[in-house]
Amino acid sequence: MYKLDNDFTLRERALKAFPNGVYGHQASGSLSPNHPQFFSRARGCRLWDSDGNEYIDFMCGYGTNLLGYGHPRVDDAAARQQRQIDCATGPSPLMLELAEMYNDKLAHADWTIFAKNGTDATTICVMTARAQTGKNTILIADGAYHGSGPWCTPGPVGVTPGDRDHQISYDYNDVSSLRAAVEQAGNDLAAIIVSPFKHDVFVDQEWPTDEFAKAARALCDENNAALILDDVRCAFRFVLGSTWEAIGVLPDLCAMSKSVANGYSLAVVSGNDKFREGAGQIYTTGSFWFAATSFAAAMETISVIEEEDSIAAIKAAGDTLRKGLDEQASAYGFSLRQTGPSQMPLVLIDDDPMWEKNNFFCNEAAQRGVYMHPWHNMFLCAAHREADIAEALENTDGAFKALKKQFG
Amino acid sequence: MYKLDNDFTLRERALKAFPNGVYGHQASGSLSPNHPQFFSRARGCRLWDSDGNEYIDFMCGYGTNLLGYGHPRVDDAAARQQRQIDCATGPSPLMLELAEMYNDKLAHADWTIFAKNGTDATTICVMTARAQTGKNTILIADGAYHGSGPWCTPGPVGVTPGDRDHQISYDYNDVSSLRAAVEQAGNDLAAIIVSPFKHDVFVDQEWPTDEFAKAARALCDENNAALILDDVRCAFRFVLGSTWEAIGVLPDLCAMSKSVANGYSLAVVSGNDKFREGAGQIYTTGSFWFAATSFAAAMETISVIEEEDSIAAIKAAGDTLRKGLDEQASAYGFSLRQTGPSQMPLVLIDDDPMWEKNNFFCNEAAQRGVYMHPWHNMFLCAAHREADIAEALENTDGAFKALKKQFG
Repeated sequence: MYKLDNDFTLRERALKAFPNGVYGHQASGSLSPNHPQFFSRARGCRLWDSDGNEYIDFMCGYGTNLLGYGHPRVDDAAARQQRQIDCATGPSPLMLELAEMYNDKLAHADWTIFAKNGTDATTICVMTARAQTGKNTILIADGAYHGSGPWCTPGPVGVTPGDRDHQISYDYNDVSSLRAAVEQAGNDLAAIIVSPFKHDVFVDQEWPTDEFAKAARALCDENNAALILDDVRCAFRFVLGSTWEAIGVLPDLCAMSKSVANGYSLAVVSGNDKFREGAGQIYTTGSFWFAATSFAAAMETISVIEEEDSIAAIKAAGDTLRKGLDEQASAYGFSLRQTGPSQMPLVLIDDDPMWEKNNFFCNEAAQRGVYMHPWHNMFLCAAHREADIAEALENTDGAFKALKKQFG
Repeated sequence: MYKLDNDFTLRERALKAFPNGVYGHQASGSLSPNHPQFFSRARGCRLWDSDGNEYIDFMCGYGTNLLGYGHPRVDDAAARQQRQIDCATGPSPLMLELAEMYNDKLAHADWTIFAKNGTDATTICVMTARAQTGKNTILIADGAYHGSGPWCTPGPVGVTPGDRDHQISYDYNDVSSLRAAVEQAGNDLAAIIVSPFKHDVFVDQEWPTDEFAKAARALCDENNAALILDDVRCAFRFVLGSTWEAIGVLPDLCAMSKSVANGYSLAVVSGNDKFREGAGQIYTTGSFWFAATSFAAAMETISVIEEEDSIAAIKAAGDTLRKGLDEQASAYGFSLRQTGPSQMPLVLIDDDPMWEKNNFFCNEAAQRGVYMHPWHNMFLCAAHREADIAEALENTDGAFKALKKQFG
């Protein structure tokens, strides 16, 4: 019998311990009440909640789990490093070795800066672009998420209008809208920031057209501006490099985080020599940015990706899941919109203006041991093996059946 | 024979791998060339650099080392947690338990928000103050460091004027200057942000007068503004609470980081109920902010502090060091300015406009196995035992002797 008793109690306590419950992207307030919030154990592609319920997890720590929770090779490398030196008065030589590894392996990268949050990385890219070009205006796709600092938080409460000076929006995948924004920026264009694909919440995802990606590259070149790829969410799920390498477009500046150290906190900015001077002029730092344990985890993550062909495994798992969900939806007579790449799918049930079907389906899936998200892109990892996907599909079949019963 | 051959080579490579060498507060470019930069091992109060030289470390990871590097109890608690769950799709119940512990133990705290960087914490405080009060102006002490985001980085390159809208400066410890700033803010005062003591680089440190601290508190109350204590650097070296608890002044919002998890990356914002609603309205998050390993480390750090009376040990070590350095300086005829609390001392040699003596002395100390900083406040930790301080002083005696020989 599926119960969330402990979870309900913990959420009640959280309303008091935190300002208004757990906050940010893991806020339970933004999900239906029957979605579990607190987890006590994680292994491979599985989670156990505080009531002991087990899930095959299709959120993967919102992308931080790339190779499997508790990956033995990554965790061993991190633990070995932790015993030597982590956060100290100066960096370990490992910081340098990891930077050199990125500069070598990422096609666009001549230099690297390490930080802790995705927001750190996107902010450093914007500061670098402004420092290098001496210009201010940043073009940002309407509805895109680039972090939660004052300049970019999607809930702009507690910020000033000045925090968002010199920003112009464009529509993702719409070349004419991008051109219009460039024109509006005039001679003040510092950068275009863009996600590898449109992965906004609540709406269908879009892979960029070649035309759009190439236009963004060309417009930056023509205007002496930086093409900033916000690869925080996508990095290393598609290619061991900036994600647009796959379509032949290299950014000037790239922000990565989440998956790069398989769950250890790390953010990476990498850039080309055109922007080296600007990057060297900004002052950016953090108390834990030189800590070696996350660097050891990041190096081992790269080795595992290369040796175990993890990216192909992630894609295969995503393809199988997608195909299975499509078959089930049509067997039960539901129209399903699966958008975005299968490594990071968004799965939406059609004809659901009040979001009832999507929430119901995800709750039914959770009760059957499958953790899915009703409106955020999900994530596959290399620990999603064939048997896990098969087991998940067995259980989503039951969830579709329940959905059919409820909504006819 | 003391050599830094590996270190020189690594620094050379770092100029290429990073935009302009190691950046931020650990940038070697800001120190004399004979200061080592890269460290391969850390234990207790000791560091070993990449050439194998051993140091008694008086920077303690710029404050992150509170109880000793590699503290067995903290590291064991973290490793146990890492094997269960760290960064996942939802938080561990540990996140809640740690928040409740802070809300219980910190006199000012009714709620908590966790993040990763000190800059995250100060930024969340500023956003919360603005959200709660509906006002914009923040008073900041001239020369104070509150992080490296666009609104506060001390090297404002790559930022726009708008990032610093609505900021007014005041002089630390100067009540009339604070009053003038409040007056200038008029009815737009959102917050006064202040460090527990003046710990700016290059200049003498100042502990706040009671009058100053109390005036800051009263001015915030009178103007319905937030008193934000930036305790990022100081927390838990003076009291298990916000540092001004020691002088009877409680902040509305407090930013902590560095030492709270003894080196594991964690930042903490805690606030009172007056600011709960504002804190609950802002959108702030990070990919690794819900990761449990750092929470386990933070909980164990509190236990160790309480059970081993670590704060008293840190003060005793600092007092002994201070006394010894004073005696040596006067024996060799140098006038030494030791300012700030002995837990976080700044040690400056007088009559040194070109910073030659201070750099020379620190280099001589390093060659003798003592890592000191020529212009940044240093940090004592609980692993600085009596024998370590005695050994350090034996070696600083040699450094003073060399200084005497060089500068007469």
